[in-house]
Amino acid sequence: MSNTPAAAKRGIPSKTDFKEWYPFIVEAAELVDKRYPIKGMDVWRPYGWKTMRLIDDLTHSEMERTDHDEVNFPLLIPEDLLDKENRLVSLLKAAREQGVDPSELRMEDEAGGFAKEVYWIRHAGESKLDKPMFLRPTSETAMYTMFPLWIRSHADLPLKTYQIVNTFRYETKQTRSFIRVREIHFFEAHTAHIDEDDATRQIEQDLEIVQNLMNELKLPVLVTKRPVWDTFPGAWYTIAIDVIMPDGRTLQVASCHHYRDQWARAFDVTYEAESGEQEFVHQTTYGMSERLLGAIVATHGDDQGLIMPPSVAPIQVIVIPIIAKNSSEDMVSEAEKIVSKLKESGIRARMDARDIRPGQKYYDWEIKGVPLRIEIGPRDLANDSFMCARRTGGKESHPLANLVDTVNTELSSIGEEMSKKSKEHFNSCIKKLPGFSVDGDTLVFDESINTDQVYEMAFEGNDAEAEMIEKSTGLAFLGNSTTTYSEPKNCVISGKPTHNRVYLARTY
Amino acid sequence: MSNTPAAAKRGIPSKTDFKEWYPFIVEAAELVDKRYPIKGMDVWRPYGWKTMRLIDDLTHSEMERTDHDEVNFPLLIPEDLLDKENRLVSLLKAAREQGVDPSELRMEDEAGGFAKEVYWIRHAGESKLDKPMFLRPTSETAMYTMFPLWIRSHADLPLKTYQIVNTFRYETKQTRSFIRVREIHFFEAHTAHIDEDDATRQIEQDLEIVQNLMNELKLPVLVTKRPVWDTFPGAWYTIAIDVIMPDGRTLQVASCHHYRDQWARAFDVTYEAESGEQEFVHQTTYGMSERLLGAIVATHGDDQGLIMPPSVAPIQVIVIPIIAKNSSEDMVSEAEKIVSKLKESGIRARMDARDIRPGQKYYDWEIKGVPLRIEIGPRDLANDSFMCARRTGGKESHPLANLVDTVNTELSSIGEEMSKKSKEHFNSCIKKLPGFSVDGDTLVFDESINTDQVYEMAFEGNDAEAEMIEKSTGLAFLGNSTTTYSEPKNCVISGKPTHNRVYLARTY
Repeated sequence: MSNTPAAAKRGIPSKTDFKEWYPFIVEAAELVDKRYPIKGMDVWRPYGWKTMRLIDDLTHSEMERTDHDEVNFPLLIPEDLLDKENRLVSLLKAAREQGVDPSELRMEDEAGGFAKEVYWIRHAGESKLDKPMFLRPTSETAMYTMFPLWIRSHADLPLKTYQIVNTFRYETKQTRSFIRVREIHFFEAHTAHIDEDDATRQIEQDLEIVQNLMNELKLPVLVTKRPVWDTFPGAWYTIAIDVIMPDGRTLQVASCHHYRDQWARAFDVTYEAESGEQEFVHQTTYGMSERLLGAIVATHGDDQGLIMPPSVAPIQVIVIPIIAKNSSEDMVSEAEKIVSKLKESGIRARMDARDIRPGQKYYDWEIKGVPLRIEIGPRDLANDSFMCARRTGGKESHPLANLVDTVNTELSSIGEEMSKKSKEHFNSCIKKLPGFSVDGDTLVFDESINTDQVYEMAFEGNDAEAEMIEKSTGLAFLGNSTTTYSEPKNCVISGKPTHNRVYLARTY
Repeated sequence: MSNTPAAAKRGIPSKTDFKEWYPFIVEAAELVDKRYPIKGMDVWRPYGWKTMRLIDDLTHSEMERTDHDEVNFPLLIPEDLLDKENRLVSLLKAAREQGVDPSELRMEDEAGGFAKEVYWIRHAGESKLDKPMFLRPTSETAMYTMFPLWIRSHADLPLKTYQIVNTFRYETKQTRSFIRVREIHFFEAHTAHIDEDDATRQIEQDLEIVQNLMNELKLPVLVTKRPVWDTFPGAWYTIAIDVIMPDGRTLQVASCHHYRDQWARAFDVTYEAESGEQEFVHQTTYGMSERLLGAIVATHGDDQGLIMPPSVAPIQVIVIPIIAKNSSEDMVSEAEKIVSKLKESGIRARMDARDIRPGQKYYDWEIKGVPLRIEIGPRDLANDSFMCARRTGGKESHPLANLVDTVNTELSSIGEEMSKKSKEHFNSCIKKLPGFSVDGDTLVFDESINTDQVYEMAFEGNDAEAEMIEKSTGLAFLGNSTTTYSEPKNCVISGKPTHNRVYLARTY
């Protein structure tokens, strides 16, 4: 895959050079402007923000369908609320001493590490604040301070809330638009349930929502239960959703956490059960972010620019009047008619009547990834037809009489084409882990490990064995696939048959 | 006006005691929860947030109609960008020394005062930042840093952008939900134009947008050109939009600023004119906030709770099955049918099938201000009819066959009723300034001044005279009405005929 002359002319790097291509394209397509004078905080330009808002709209409607209520919490969190998080750590420590679940092992590090990632407010105006505050990195602490005030009895459960807000992390790693930023456009659902089973059902519903969204965005994903050492602090388990990027590394775009009653114990979130007893609620969270847009850019784009999934394309159809020298006005008004007919049917259409060559217009809308381009010139009009060019390739003439139907059909076939291509890439990235022999605590593979690849293997070993595999491959355990494999395979370590499939990858 | 027994039973203070009523009702109607542990930062509950989002939707569609593009800027602003604001101050000082416009007189104080109102970030994780940052109180500084990168030539103008974001002020005054808060849900439009006239046309468009929104929200407003000493820093002039609250004090809910080229000079925002010369752009801003919701609560509410304007009511119609002991299921399914028919027609309807007395349900939805209540019981059904109760008063039976039409008619007549009532209150609050005699530098009024009143007067005196009036009345100059009065009246001070009408009020 090399640059077409046109793309090269505009200086678009080849997508094979993903590291160059990605940062170039997010600015060239006017999604963001990275020249704002704080590293890792981009300005959302209208085209990027509109796309993000359309992604949010999909999320809002899934939330409405599943009876979640939208709330909006303050950005600032008083430092002293962290005491309760520390209490969570102590509770988990005590539980561990009693020999409970190993999922709690990493809590101390995490809670300590948390303070390393936040922005602190200790001054306002000319005063030093008595109560320091920090910008939310996520909202457990803020929300679970309020939940006990909202939950009295079993009749208040399940409590299903969500918000779409800005969160903040003081990233010290290299930042990348949408992928690793310091101000994050963030979605977080927080729910409380009468018991573990009901919380588990919530996780199942979350995964169904994820699947619906990924279908709309044409993103194939890996859904895995993260290994214990990569489980969110205070979570019983974490299910993460990863996209495979063009360079073969995986990008986590969503995660769901089952908290059981661990946070509830720290924050005293109880309810009166039907029995009259006070019980702790069981909680879940489900998070996503602007990484979804990063994944769209990375998955679907090509050497000519972005390709926007029709469901979230700010402009689904660009209509270009092809102006012959002596009939310019007619074509513009014909194009206008087409745009208004499409808009009436709820299609996001726009006309480009700028006084520049059509070729230049094509480039501009290609780079922005507009799924469908309509051209209308005197010859088309004479035949009562219009020309339809798909951003995914192909161009045909259609009768004007079928305008709206044709456009809807074209948009959905573009969507299907995008699904097909991305699924192909996805499948091509996943390989079986090669055979190996064990040499001390190292695995020696029969063929060399490619770190731009995701590896799948049957595995049901312990943490030490997992660590050995991670070290020997230079890849990270994503975790167990949540797909149930009916056919057992032999664990790569023990040789015992297992239904578990584990993914290994280099991660973002 | 006194409490009805039902309202008193629920402890709603009478609205005549506005200071008690307002904070009670915003929590009782579940708009916000004030128990979050930071003063002046409320939690938006689902009902309040949904209302705010519906208000935002009206704003978004007005912005789309008028070709504004939505952007989203980082929350954090590096301290060193303030240097440019300081440059603005110096420029204005220099201008003043050359005898320019008096509108710049207050710049120094303001720029100094600004630093007193912001939250500072000087630490992140465990490090002290080299470059301190602050949370945006408004976005001029952030945006005008980027504008020079986006504006090259006259072809890039007008640049019309807006955003809806959270802004922050370290308020030291008493906080009040929606009215005076520390985290503000904020709308700000920022535009750049080729010249002063085009910027002036923008201000005219802004005022037209304001009027459209106020019509939807059923809020009568005063539109005045603020006096020089109350003009936004760096603005040539400020036009402010005030609501008259139930206690007669005015609440500024929106403002538009014409900056001429003052900010452009400080931030070097220039463009290449058709002549080839570099020229400074002329800029405007237009701001609104969650105060709109505060004004809705205050203007329309009564002793039973809120009354939501149908345009932004999260629930426009609540449908209550009246359950006879032996036919419960039928009524619930009839109510469900009604809800789905209404929803299909785009009406926000919901059923309340809780197992409590209908009277309790009525109270609950009255306090939340749902405009229309539908009751459906066996007797209604037998007559193929349903009962319709307006939150603004009145209750009638209508044929089920006309359901959707009836509901649409009812909702719009509720809106009209709200307009009429609020306009009556508005008019009743505005009085002519009583006659007076002058005693030294004090005015002695023929009848006593009521500080719960807005006063109107013909005035075209100077600042010293305005100050004398403010001191003698204890009221503030809102400024000159932007309405052109064809009939001249005599200025209260000079006695000379003038078309100017000035408003005086106690302000929030």
